[in-house]
Amino acid sequence: MAQKKPTVTLKDIAEQTGYSINTVSRALRDKADIADATRQKIKKVAAEMGHVNNMLAASLRLGYTNTVAVILGDISNPHFAIMMKEIEVHARGYGYNSILYNTNEDEALELEAIRSALNKNVDGIIICPAQKTRENLKYLESTGVPFVLIGRRDEAYSYVVCNDEMGGFLATAALISAGHKDILLLHGAMYISSARERLAGYRRAYAQSGLKVPERLIREVPVTANGCSAVLEQLKEEEITFTAIFAFSDMLAWEAWSCLMRRDVRVPQDCSLIGFDHIQSRLNLPFSLTSVSSYKGRMSTAAVDFLVRQMQGNSAKEQLVIDTALAVGQTVMTL
Amino acid sequence: MAQKKPTVTLKDIAEQTGYSINTVSRALRDKADIADATRQKIKKVAAEMGHVNNMLAASLRLGYTNTVAVILGDISNPHFAIMMKEIEVHARGYGYNSILYNTNEDEALELEAIRSALNKNVDGIIICPAQKTRENLKYLESTGVPFVLIGRRDEAYSYVVCNDEMGGFLATAALISAGHKDILLLHGAMYISSARERLAGYRRAYAQSGLKVPERLIREVPVTANGCSAVLEQLKEEEITFTAIFAFSDMLAWEAWSCLMRRDVRVPQDCSLIGFDHIQSRLNLPFSLTSVSSYKGRMSTAAVDFLVRQMQGNSAKEQLVIDTALAVGQTVMTL
Repeated sequence: MAQKKPTVTLKDIAEQTGYSINTVSRALRDKADIADATRQKIKKVAAEMGHVNNMLAASLRLGYTNTVAVILGDISNPHFAIMMKEIEVHARGYGYNSILYNTNEDEALELEAIRSALNKNVDGIIICPAQKTRENLKYLESTGVPFVLIGRRDEAYSYVVCNDEMGGFLATAALISAGHKDILLLHGAMYISSARERLAGYRRAYAQSGLKVPERLIREVPVTANGCSAVLEQLKEEEITFTAIFAFSDMLAWEAWSCLMRRDVRVPQDCSLIGFDHIQSRLNLPFSLTSVSSYKGRMSTAAVDFLVRQMQGNSAKEQLVIDTALAVGQTVMTL
Repeated sequence: MAQKKPTVTLKDIAEQTGYSINTVSRALRDKADIADATRQKIKKVAAEMGHVNNMLAASLRLGYTNTVAVILGDISNPHFAIMMKEIEVHARGYGYNSILYNTNEDEALELEAIRSALNKNVDGIIICPAQKTRENLKYLESTGVPFVLIGRRDEAYSYVVCNDEMGGFLATAALISAGHKDILLLHGAMYISSARERLAGYRRAYAQSGLKVPERLIREVPVTANGCSAVLEQLKEEEITFTAIFAFSDMLAWEAWSCLMRRDVRVPQDCSLIGFDHIQSRLNLPFSLTSVSSYKGRMSTAAVDFLVRQMQGNSAKEQLVIDTALAVGQTVMTL
């Protein structure tokens, strides 16, 4: 499909500079026996001629490509975008480039992404798995390519996650200590490890306070847009009330806030609200949402570190759970 | 640095399945003379054994890699993240993978990204150039690798931008028609084409309304975080007042809004506010910022289309300016 690129050969550069092919070759590879001035001159001419070091041949010879794949749900979601930024920069520090894949949380697209990455002979993969099934990770494992999960975990593999259970607990406990008993949990799909664990934290906070968990207020929000609105409508129809919301993500919290505003419910006067991810640490929004900080920067760099160690031959499984903390904003009101 | 990967050969698969190497090879390449059942069986065993089609050899033979580089300022900025999502998905539809590079708007990092991409033998590059100088684009041009600019333009090259001048005009005209005369323009660095053009639109709106442009209210905000706060402080010290703000981006508009809130200035009651990018089309925020819609989805797919045509051998320069529109939110109040 693509046309063949014109290639500038070492011979071309040698003719242009007047040096031997051997000298040109050694200069371009930064060999120590070439004088600095010579090296710089040759490199300058080579760059002007459009010569690029051909890493494909090296890749084929050495069996690695210095490329990693990053497979995420949706890069346009700030949660993933912040992680991607950190991963790309940190991986590049190690000399690895990052190929991005969006899966839209779809297992088939995820498998396609994995296969594409393998076809590209990536040296390793960082993946936030869709987790609807374990098939894709099992397939990935079978290929022998190093990989690390980020944000969601599976005990069989290396991963970096934040302490989701702790985050769920901290958010719920903060609301309970502000006098809230009817806390609506807008949680993610239960096949996602972080959703399950945040729910466990929610339950632990209720248990610790001696209150009964309001099961009617535990509602799963579909990943599709505007899922929040349908859930809130449903609760209204069922005449189920609540005084606070703990949302699975800041994205969901904002969406819930939007829905509440349309119904003239004020945050926090009429309804307290806590999100998860503390995206505001990177986005200068004028409304300070109380949220659970998941330390995406640390998660991302740790995931890269784990992957690099694997790519360097460390076969030991590495798993890290980073403590979460409550970032107090202005969306919780004491009853 | 990385260890060599174990490779599953066609011979391994042939031995495992009992078919000949030739049959295995033809099955894996989807040749028509292999029965469906046989092909599926061979592919299944190959996948289980961890065999991946090795595209490196094909790349070396054919001179292309089916990979593009996307070089952007900062993927954690939703403006870029939304574009990246669209680019990645659209490019993958054409069979191209996307390597991401963040430049932090730094010329040196940008050059490093370009060189890295060339080393990877990418087939083409989509770049939102830092534009401090023209050197990097000139270098890129000298290499002969196809590339398309996105979001910022240089008449020498192929690009896709939104109509920034029109956007600047629409926002400013809307504020003027709401009775505002003292409109603070928080604009980006003037070496960025989109910043210059939005300023031109601001001037045209004033000219068209017969009002004098308030030069004292044209302020450049550094790309560094919290630049907005310093500009607003400076204006306060200079005792320069304004009744509305037109910000270079939604990110900047939100930051300005945050600063105003800290000073108990209400939006829009005390100060109207218009941003640029209409990021809210993708983020469900509870505060409806009036903004200029830049149609990132269309920009991104057009940029990929242009690049694909170039990679297929079309040497004609292609340039597209997509009309902008005002997305009316709730942050403009008539005086």
